Amino acid sequence: MQNDTAALHQRATRLDQNDALAGYREGFAVPDQLIYLDGNSLGAFQPDIASRVADTLTNQWGQQLIGGWNDAGWFDAPLRVGDLIAPLIGAGAGEVAVCDSTSINLFKAVDAMCQTQPDRTRILSQGDNFATDNYMVQALARLNPALDVAYFVTDDELEHALATGDVACVLLSQVDYRSAAKRDLPATTARIQAHGARVVWDLSHSTGAVELDLRGSNADAAVGCTYKYLNGGPGAPAYIWIHPTWIDQVSPALPGWMGNAQPFDFQRDYQPHAGIRRMICGTPSILSLHALDAAMRVWASVDMVAVQRKSQSLSQWFIECVQALCPADSVSLRSPHTPEQRGSHLAFAHPNAYAVVQALIARGVIGDFRAPDLIRVGFAPLYLSHLDVLRAAMALADVLETGEWDQPKFHAKARVT
Amino acid sequence: MQNDTAALHQRATRLDQNDALAGYREGFAVPDQLIYLDGNSLGAFQPDIASRVADTLTNQWGQQLIGGWNDAGWFDAPLRVGDLIAPLIGAGAGEVAVCDSTSINLFKAVDAMCQTQPDRTRILSQGDNFATDNYMVQALARLNPALDVAYFVTDDELEHALATGDVACVLLSQVDYRSAAKRDLPATTARIQAHGARVVWDLSHSTGAVELDLRGSNADAAVGCTYKYLNGGPGAPAYIWIHPTWIDQVSPALPGWMGNAQPFDFQRDYQPHAGIRRMICGTPSILSLHALDAAMRVWASVDMVAVQRKSQSLSQWFIECVQALCPADSVSLRSPHTPEQRGSHLAFAHPNAYAVVQALIARGVIGDFRAPDLIRVGFAPLYLSHLDVLRAAMALADVLETGEWDQPKFHAKARVT
Repeated sequence: MQNDTAALHQRATRLDQNDALAGYREGFAVPDQLIYLDGNSLGAFQPDIASRVADTLTNQWGQQLIGGWNDAGWFDAPLRVGDLIAPLIGAGAGEVAVCDSTSINLFKAVDAMCQTQPDRTRILSQGDNFATDNYMVQALARLNPALDVAYFVTDDELEHALATGDVACVLLSQVDYRSAAKRDLPATTARIQAHGARVVWDLSHSTGAVELDLRGSNADAAVGCTYKYLNGGPGAPAYIWIHPTWIDQVSPALPGWMGNAQPFDFQRDYQPHAGIRRMICGTPSILSLHALDAAMRVWASVDMVAVQRKSQSLSQWFIECVQALCPADSVSLRSPHTPEQRGSHLAFAHPNAYAVVQALIARGVIGDFRAPDLIRVGFAPLYLSHLDVLRAAMALADVLETGEWDQPKFHAKARVT
Repeated sequence: MQNDTAALHQRATRLDQNDALAGYREGFAVPDQLIYLDGNSLGAFQPDIASRVADTLTNQWGQQLIGGWNDAGWFDAPLRVGDLIAPLIGAGAGEVAVCDSTSINLFKAVDAMCQTQPDRTRILSQGDNFATDNYMVQALARLNPALDVAYFVTDDELEHALATGDVACVLLSQVDYRSAAKRDLPATTARIQAHGARVVWDLSHSTGAVELDLRGSNADAAVGCTYKYLNGGPGAPAYIWIHPTWIDQVSPALPGWMGNAQPFDFQRDYQPHAGIRRMICGTPSILSLHALDAAMRVWASVDMVAVQRKSQSLSQWFIECVQALCPADSVSLRSPHTPEQRGSHLAFAHPNAYAVVQALIARGVIGDFRAPDLIRVGFAPLYLSHLDVLRAAMALADVLETGEWDQPKFHAKARVT
């Protein structure tokens, strides 16, 4: 084992020496004592954000007050920040709005796609998707009795459901929040569209970790989260993209004054603004938008091909280390074994996954538990090294080997996340 | 005129000496050169907020990362901040959630009230309400073809529409965003309920300026803005209150994972959390919630009776000063003349209101223009003095008397707000 570890250290060091993204780590403030494998849930903090937010508070709000909407450019912040996200997802300039939460943007996007298919009444939803996705389409069908929701899990079920010809819109995640299984976005889009249905992609676990080309793939609509790999901060606003073919044909499900053609005319009847701005609803949170704006600056110089390559390298390296170090069969990988078929996290099953995760957290290795039996670890390419990953695997091996997790304090389910 | 001004100065000074709320001004950072009469649109900044937000960024997000949801209490922030608003609106502890925007909360509240009235199909909406209110009910009726929207403006029209017996829910503002005309909330609630309809109050222009007693008035539901008199910052999240009689009977229109009974069980089918927490949708913005939390601290010691009294004193004083100083008939008051019938702002008509407002802004007196011909000025009781109000009226008198507003730079409509 001692020899194994030394060899693994050497390999980690070599991998890190060849890491094209190694320089980005210094922009992030991950506490020294932590190995943070939860950037897939909440990305790490960049200290530069603090000065931007302080400036927004003290100099913009404090000095310009209401004038900030004009003079500090607050009014355009949702689209300005959207333009920073656009290149990462293969959207065009002016096509992405940052506003509201992913949940709310899902509601808008699915409704919008259903509007483009007035003769079809079914929403097809991935039954094992992140919960909020299913809740939102359930609500849409409750509000509009003409719509119904059907579920699929396997590819065969998707195909079978599409073949009915009733499906207006399919809502699905590209990267599964539990297993990290990644769908082929262009191929799945084409398959859905071949049956005359539209597709709404939830890119929450893809954005900032996976190469994406929404326009090139001819996707219909997408939403995503900005507080995971984009590091926008807890509860940062989400984004929404609707293909230019559709956007000007649809009336927003949640038409707020800020998405109106003439917000300050205060007309009684809604007239949508041209383009994606119509998907902005009420007054956007400038504080959150500016934090995200600052967090996005780093991405201007980042090559998404390199990001995806490193993401795959880190997760594959973790699998190797786990295989080399952990007791045989102590955990079993529940993610695709081929890196090309995954997003940037991994799930391992263990009958006491909750306690194992707590024991790791106590050692400063931060991952998370997903019911019923998953240890989930994420690999944010901008601030993790292969040495971090090795150390995390060593900690896991230790926790499993010693049975350290089997203590009452680690079994107590006091935590909400 | 000289004598007039001296006498007015004396009276303003005396009014300020008797101002029970004068001490609160020092907590706010209004630039010295400004007289800020737009706290009804965006409340002023309190420097204490900056340290709270910096702590959230650097120490909570930066150090605790994902652990902040538990260890820094982020998960409970929407209800914790709601509990700070509750006493200002006459709601009980645990009954108010802070989340999303006013627009989105309007959508949830009206839908919730319609659910409690399954045999009625009409939403009655105030035709001259703030635009977003009407847009939201239009969208609800577009999504659910069983519902329709009818409009009223006058009290007679309201009465007439209610008499049909079809009305499920009435949506209206207590304080009009243009005229500041204030409805009698208990009496209007009783009148609507006498016809078997529910009422959703938009309290955006009331909260923090007007005494409110939602429980004592037996209101059904209310939403409100926190970035006006509550000073939560640009785009701060809104609040929603649903009467305890109804909340556990209704399914949220926008059911996100954070409002689910067991958010971390990730069940496919939505099960609402008990109480108002079900109205929380996606992941709330912690940055915005903490800024608002910090902004709300001042209210713990504030007596709402004193706030309303000062609000009325300031606006009445402005009317007096305008009458004393401005050229006869140069502007005409479009707000109720009796302070008890108003909220905390005033509207004056002028054929060139836009240019007059720009000329005032150039002099450091910040009000706003509302189409087509209104000068709107707001009086935030926590940080304005009667001397400020006098100075603002003197500036207006000067701008009108000299015709200073009639310059090309003041006519150019470049501003969005």
